[in-house]
Amino acid sequence: MINKPFVDIAERLKPELIEQKIYPKRLVEIVADPEALHGWRVQGVGTYDSLHERKFEKGDSFVLDLGDHQVGYLTFSLQSAEARADAPVRLKFIFGEMPCEIGESFDEYNGWLDRSWLQDEIVNFDVVPGTYTLPRRYSFRYLKIEVLTPARKFKIAFADLYVTSVSSADLSSVPPLPDHVPDDLRVMDRISIKTLQDCMQTVFEDGPKRDRRLWIGDLRLQALANYETVKNYELVKRCLYLFAGLRLEGGQVSACVYEKPEPAADDIYLYDYSLFFISTLHDYYAATQDRDTLLQLWPVALEQVGLSLGRLDDRGIVTDDPSWYCFTDWHEDLNKQASAQAVLIYALKQAVVLAQTIGLTEQAISIRSDVDRASEAALTHLLNRSTGFFESGDQRQVSWASQVWMVLAGVLEQEENAALLDRLFEENPSIRPMTPYIYHHLIEALMLSGRKEKALEQLRVYWGGMAEEGADTFWEVFQPADKNNSPYGSNLINSYCHAWSCTPTYFIRKYYAPFHSNRTKDSHSSEVN
Amino acid sequence: MINKPFVDIAERLKPELIEQKIYPKRLVEIVADPEALHGWRVQGVGTYDSLHERKFEKGDSFVLDLGDHQVGYLTFSLQSAEARADAPVRLKFIFGEMPCEIGESFDEYNGWLDRSWLQDEIVNFDVVPGTYTLPRRYSFRYLKIEVLTPARKFKIAFADLYVTSVSSADLSSVPPLPDHVPDDLRVMDRISIKTLQDCMQTVFEDGPKRDRRLWIGDLRLQALANYETVKNYELVKRCLYLFAGLRLEGGQVSACVYEKPEPAADDIYLYDYSLFFISTLHDYYAATQDRDTLLQLWPVALEQVGLSLGRLDDRGIVTDDPSWYCFTDWHEDLNKQASAQAVLIYALKQAVVLAQTIGLTEQAISIRSDVDRASEAALTHLLNRSTGFFESGDQRQVSWASQVWMVLAGVLEQEENAALLDRLFEENPSIRPMTPYIYHHLIEALMLSGRKEKALEQLRVYWGGMAEEGADTFWEVFQPADKNNSPYGSNLINSYCHAWSCTPTYFIRKYYAPFHSNRTKDSHSSEVN
Repeated sequence: MINKPFVDIAERLKPELIEQKIYPKRLVEIVADPEALHGWRVQGVGTYDSLHERKFEKGDSFVLDLGDHQVGYLTFSLQSAEARADAPVRLKFIFGEMPCEIGESFDEYNGWLDRSWLQDEIVNFDVVPGTYTLPRRYSFRYLKIEVLTPARKFKIAFADLYVTSVSSADLSSVPPLPDHVPDDLRVMDRISIKTLQDCMQTVFEDGPKRDRRLWIGDLRLQALANYETVKNYELVKRCLYLFAGLRLEGGQVSACVYEKPEPAADDIYLYDYSLFFISTLHDYYAATQDRDTLLQLWPVALEQVGLSLGRLDDRGIVTDDPSWYCFTDWHEDLNKQASAQAVLIYALKQAVVLAQTIGLTEQAISIRSDVDRASEAALTHLLNRSTGFFESGDQRQVSWASQVWMVLAGVLEQEENAALLDRLFEENPSIRPMTPYIYHHLIEALMLSGRKEKALEQLRVYWGGMAEEGADTFWEVFQPADKNNSPYGSNLINSYCHAWSCTPTYFIRKYYAPFHSNRTKDSHSSEVN
Repeated sequence: MINKPFVDIAERLKPELIEQKIYPKRLVEIVADPEALHGWRVQGVGTYDSLHERKFEKGDSFVLDLGDHQVGYLTFSLQSAEARADAPVRLKFIFGEMPCEIGESFDEYNGWLDRSWLQDEIVNFDVVPGTYTLPRRYSFRYLKIEVLTPARKFKIAFADLYVTSVSSADLSSVPPLPDHVPDDLRVMDRISIKTLQDCMQTVFEDGPKRDRRLWIGDLRLQALANYETVKNYELVKRCLYLFAGLRLEGGQVSACVYEKPEPAADDIYLYDYSLFFISTLHDYYAATQDRDTLLQLWPVALEQVGLSLGRLDDRGIVTDDPSWYCFTDWHEDLNKQASAQAVLIYALKQAVVLAQTIGLTEQAISIRSDVDRASEAALTHLLNRSTGFFESGDQRQVSWASQVWMVLAGVLEQEENAALLDRLFEENPSIRPMTPYIYHHLIEALMLSGRKEKALEQLRVYWGGMAEEGADTFWEVFQPADKNNSPYGSNLINSYCHAWSCTPTYFIRKYYAPFHSNRTKDSHSSEVN
């Protein structure tokens, strides 16, 4: 169901990328070390300049460290040494966001996602000397080059090697943090802005290494971080128009869209993600007051309201389903019914705000009554009054995610929410948060319930834990108690610069470093209760 | 020693290549077969059109047969099947001139030339569907595509796949052979023109798969075949100016030059090859009567005369040397002294013709006296009057190559030459001809000595032997008695479309199908005796 005028608006908003020339910082070795994260440690062995003095032949290799995570294109000047090149030069390139990607062999990769996401190439260069730019974009800090040939008359040298990094984020517009912000938060702020920057391309990508797609769940969080930092409103607008222009057959906003070869929706529908179209539009309007866009996209948001209400059963509860109908978090055993119900309430409240903003009073009243019905149903059918926990599904599962989302939905009063969260930490149900995505919502829930210290503690444990492990950008997956965790059966395929992990800057700048004098009420999604 | 005006003339003569869209003829399998050449047989398994109906995933592969040898660029449309592609597609491409290149694994290649000459690629395609053209040029008839991913949600299909072949040879200008030419010679004529065509690019390459360089030894033979067929005089002129513009420090014409990244000489000097500058200029003038080019390049030719004479010892014999100072043929044990002496005489006779043509009578007389001195020295010091064979080097080696070149040099009278060649076949010295390059000269020697039947017999045994083995283009290496022979330790690295093997069309059209009414005397190098 393509709305071409919307797609055309989106395409006109496609940004020019900002390019930067990045030279490697040093030559390193990646050393096996059982004590190190994933079992690999980085050890400096020389300056970048010392690379130019070296001559390479078959069997030689070297590893460069860019000093930071980069997304971009590799350019290098290949020269022959000792004799003129009389044969093509065959090189293998291995790009790694993390040392494990350099240390381990991709050939033995046996994970559950396609090996083509692992970033390596074997390329033959016919003309040497020559300056080459590899055609694909890579996401990496470490680069290993293995020399497969020459083996005979000549050797090769690298006269120049750099990365042209690309991003649609202009960091010059990010205000400095005030002096009172402590150092560890400054570090987290920097890393999360870098994460955001490297994910901001011609859309908000979920991960520049893997997937490289626009997912609405990631977009919503990126947009929140973006409003606090680089303020690229046009890019959010472009993404909203892409989702609005590329709905599924039934009118649902799809979970993700592809930009190339031409904009197209994936066939994945997720209950929570389609509702986040409302949230993202709500947050966008709060940040920009762009009434034209609100008016144009409101019908799509309203359609999501209707479609989502259609899933409620006679009791007013989201119909559960063993299929993957709602995201919430990556957790094999997590039941989504309660969180889906909560996201519905959360998004419907934002729809009420939008309807009121536009002046659609009757519609606002109608949606408000849906909110009341869904909230009432949650209290009646999902909340276990004796334990005080919301329960989900036939098995009446108690999970962290269900409680977190019910807090964000504001089904209970703020004091009750705070008590629920205290109880959650105390009793620690075994279905715990898995990904940065749900940790974001946990911290947001703590913030909104007046548990800022606890929120800060969790921020420090979780994202601070990644920072302590040397993260240049925040990761798709992090389990402090199981640092080699991968949802895909291999650390190699994890994304180590991942959109849904970019929100520490949002928390820090919104809650710990409030220096915006002109911040408006209702400027963030979490304040709509 | 760069003569920039000459190089500039050469660059202005760089041809536009003629492109042709070539679709594969069929799907095949390459089957191990101890009876087949190199141990591999081709078996048809389907039409090209049937490819479009197939869907591929990890582990699948297929082999296409273009039906003939082609030099060019691969384009294909990659589509996803069953679901949208949600990950890059990783494909391996293996290009083979011969079935063995598809049948055997390049990973086990252990030959003496760099493995980078073997034509394979692993390429990741980020955007599917998409139409891609691989950036490198390939020389091949067979193409194997191995699907390394996808392994999960989707499959891939090839909606379109073709080769854009390139050549600077315009076959429309090749006259048909007269009716009386027998079928086997017609086949050889066709194959040798195809060989010439595929080697004719922006220079006369030695082999479009391997080396891809302009060697003067190959150029001389290609030019002869070219004058009888496609008549691209400008390309010969361009190559002459490249050699003239890019001499070695001492003024010698180098054995080969590179076109890219900018025209440059290799550092290889070969005694016979530098003398072939004179021969190639002589033949070019005979074919074109292009007096301006002759006048401009004559000083370079004359310089080669002087430099080559400088190698004569007191007796007037070329100083022998254990180093690789003269090509003659690929044969480990061949001594080059006698053939070098003969090439000197051969080229000096052509220099006399050129000097006379220009009107430089004194210079002509002077070079004629050098010819006489070198010829006399050869008769005195190299010819063994008791055996009737020319002997080469300290060990007084009797080889086929030495006799062949002495015949071409015309040191003896025609009847004596004929007797020498008869004796050569009868006594069959063990240092035999190895490559098509020396076979060309053997056949030319037979032709010029009135042994046309023997020449034809040899043409049929040698090039006819390749044709019987299914050659699409003639090969760099062929030993009828040892068909798996490779000078590089592996059949995989041999070039199967090689310039110095392209001359059957020259012999057929010059000696067996004389239909040129306006053929001039002295129009070919071999007629200068």
